[in-house]
Amino acid sequence: MQGRQQVNRQVVLKERPMGIPQASHFALREAAIPEPKDGEILVRNLYLSVDPAMRGWVNAAANYSAPVAIGEVMRAFSAGRVIASRHPDYAEGDLVMGLLGWQDYAVSDGHDIRRKVREIDLPLSLSLGVLGLNGVTAYFALNACGEPKPGNTVVVSTAAGAVGSVAGQLARHQGCRAVGIAGGEDKTRLCVEEFGYDAALDYHSPQMADALAAACPEGVDVYFDNTSGRISDTVIPLINRHARIVVCGTASVASWDPWPTGPRIERHLLNKAARMQGFLVWDYEHRYEEAIGVLAPLVRQGKLRYREEILDGIEAAPGSIADLYQGKNMGKRLIRLEDV
Amino acid sequence: MQGRQQVNRQVVLKERPMGIPQASHFALREAAIPEPKDGEILVRNLYLSVDPAMRGWVNAAANYSAPVAIGEVMRAFSAGRVIASRHPDYAEGDLVMGLLGWQDYAVSDGHDIRRKVREIDLPLSLSLGVLGLNGVTAYFALNACGEPKPGNTVVVSTAAGAVGSVAGQLARHQGCRAVGIAGGEDKTRLCVEEFGYDAALDYHSPQMADALAAACPEGVDVYFDNTSGRISDTVIPLINRHARIVVCGTASVASWDPWPTGPRIERHLLNKAARMQGFLVWDYEHRYEEAIGVLAPLVRQGKLRYREEILDGIEAAPGSIADLYQGKNMGKRLIRLEDV
Repeated sequence: MQGRQQVNRQVVLKERPMGIPQASHFALREAAIPEPKDGEILVRNLYLSVDPAMRGWVNAAANYSAPVAIGEVMRAFSAGRVIASRHPDYAEGDLVMGLLGWQDYAVSDGHDIRRKVREIDLPLSLSLGVLGLNGVTAYFALNACGEPKPGNTVVVSTAAGAVGSVAGQLARHQGCRAVGIAGGEDKTRLCVEEFGYDAALDYHSPQMADALAAACPEGVDVYFDNTSGRISDTVIPLINRHARIVVCGTASVASWDPWPTGPRIERHLLNKAARMQGFLVWDYEHRYEEAIGVLAPLVRQGKLRYREEILDGIEAAPGSIADLYQGKNMGKRLIRLEDV
Repeated sequence: MQGRQQVNRQVVLKERPMGIPQASHFALREAAIPEPKDGEILVRNLYLSVDPAMRGWVNAAANYSAPVAIGEVMRAFSAGRVIASRHPDYAEGDLVMGLLGWQDYAVSDGHDIRRKVREIDLPLSLSLGVLGLNGVTAYFALNACGEPKPGNTVVVSTAAGAVGSVAGQLARHQGCRAVGIAGGEDKTRLCVEEFGYDAALDYHSPQMADALAAACPEGVDVYFDNTSGRISDTVIPLINRHARIVVCGTASVASWDPWPTGPRIERHLLNKAARMQGFLVWDYEHRYEEAIGVLAPLVRQGKLRYREEILDGIEAAPGSIADLYQGKNMGKRLIRLEDV
């Protein structure tokens, strides 16, 4: 365990935000490096993940998981190396990914480890993005909920994002027309040139509705929705009979307090006998390796492209969520803790 | 063919309504009684159905079927007797149900016949209600989309209606807690006393939200929605993880032009990984007899109760839709054409 720091730097929740968490809602704290007990491992985190879902994790309102408590280490996925093990399933040197928090070191009894990272020929950071929750979310939300068929038109919002870019590429590989919606010209270009979308539209454009209709001449069979809000209001009237809408995120809604209103969806769903379904990747934890088994070979073959935006040092973590909601990031956002 | 009238009285669409069709949108016309050609049958209609869905059939806006044209006989389900047949599959005297329109007589080549009515021990009128589209809708919307499991809480809006009352009773028979929402004390009493709901709530009550939460102490697993609107806005925040919302109708929304707004649904669906699905019974036409095979025995055993509200004479047809939207009817509304 040589080279270990003397302290465990942790980002803790200082104040509960209304809406989007800002740097000021967090504090950086130094704690003692914990010692693993029998049945535990000590992990040196190497990459911390920054995810839009973190907004929900710190909000007090009822959500799909209990909110992070004030003073608690920020809940986050991270990837790291086991540097001490008193657990029979893990050896020193193993690479792992799990809910290990925004901190340098984490002790775990294994329950918060999502998986051992076995793709050692690929960068470890991928285990938090294209081969992490983002890729797995895209895979199951698209296939288990969206059920795209060859020839279908699949519309993806936040099309250049860590989840959306995988969904769009998978849709294309499965014989669909993929139409992306993203914010700004840089991202729409990235959609087409890097991720292979058939068309990409800028939601800032006042002509978005017309452009979308033109890009979907045969209507929309699958809407992979990461935004809700005005973007969805434009997509949903274009759905076809038996369309599938997968709600993966609500990135364009800054706050749910007060609860926002929008055009009622029921009549669209009824007229088209269509389906709208919320997706939580937790429902697919037991099928994680199935997704990686598809995604990793595609990455190796160069058929599944990804973008990363890596910030250096844990000091960058507190302010890193807010940018996501301003669409400032170009690719999966990560914090790198060591020069690895 | 003795006893046949000399003319075919028909209710035709005179003017296209904005919103709910009133008597003034229709005209009564007398036409010659058609003669069946080779491959056709002549049906004497005995009962005409009155359904909330008819609003959608006469509206010009894009819907799940083409609108009824001005001057055309009003599209409607009816049940009648074959009085002349030049079709190999039908014999004189057969009872049939189908999209035969609001008229005394209809000629058909069979494509608009939904089924032969074989439950001749039961009143023919049932083939338009509990053993007709209403019963079949309730059966498949509940089971194929709602997927209730024993112990689940199933909430039904328009709980005393022709569809809702069947859905509620089926849910109870399948081991669920059934909670009905209806308009007024007469209907909520009917829900509990006649249809066996565990609880029924009056949506007129200002305490509806509290009463609903109290009636669903374990949350809502299935919401069988016939109304949309404010009623749904009260139910949806109570849904459980993996809840299923089946949108069968939007009775509480008087008009979709301009398109109404309401609280956004996406976050509820996402937080609960829940599903909302539009249901069109047309998708289940090929499985019609499967539903009747379950429903008819339940009717015979007295385990599936129904209410009918029968108006006499085709003159009652034009004004009969509007009342449905004011919640004035108590049971399946039908027009009887002959004293049968």
